Amino acid sequence: MDPDALAKAFVEHYYTTFDTNRAALANLYQEASMLTFEGQKIQGAQNIVAKLTSLPFQQCLHKITTVDCQPSGVNAAMLVFVSGNLQLAGEQHALKFSQMFHLIPTPQGSYYVNNDVFRLNYA
Amino acid sequence: MDPDALAKAFVEHYYTTFDTNRAALANLYQEASMLTFEGQKIQGAQNIVAKLTSLPFQQCLHKITTVDCQPSGVNAAMLVFVSGNLQLAGEQHALKFSQMFHLIPTPQGSYYVNNDVFRLNYA
Repeated sequence: MDPDALAKAFVEHYYTTFDTNRAALANLYQEASMLTFEGQKIQGAQNIVAKLTSLPFQQCLHKITTVDCQPSGVNAAMLVFVSGNLQLAGEQHALKFSQMFHLIPTPQGSYYVNNDVFRLNYA
Repeated sequence: MDPDALAKAFVEHYYTTFDTNRAALANLYQEASMLTFEGQKIQGAQNIVAKLTSLPFQQCLHKITTVDCQPSGVNAAMLVFVSGNLQLAGEQHALKFSQMFHLIPTPQGSYYVNNDVFRLNYA
């Protein structure tokens, strides 16, 4: 599978999981993983999912606009850069967002998120 | 110097150089460096600077809104995520942008850009 297709598949899986069963995102992080969410730094799968599941909205829908992918220079690790729209239930206008993932291969042949930075663009 | 201060100093240096002497950005990239500019992939310091200096605007001003920084997990390498506004000369409205850098330490004690992804948010 080529890296661009792999990045796209990861991103689709990530946001589908976020929008349907946020707690299951725990499987995509590890203890060393870091999330910076709107400037707040959080480390570890459990803390990251605690943050994501406690956001002040229950239902949301991510729509991906762009996915860019590059090898990060370490083994088969990948940097994935996403832009898109985040529609919150009951809100008229979607919010634009940008997000960056650093994906590291696991011995099982999948990837985990080592780095995650999320920002709203307030558009 | 703590990583956040270092990331901020790098970002300020990068955009000041971009806005005043774009060709000098060549010093910040190496042959393995990759830039994805609005979806277009470019590799190597020379090709990257050729792209940046041939953009269809001569004068611009980057205004940084946010800078987020995380260690990428490899030695002292850093991931830096930027959001901001790009004001083009003669244009009334600034463009929002997001950009990601993966910075790798050099033996001389500075950093070079191994990965660079730039996207306009069309806001």
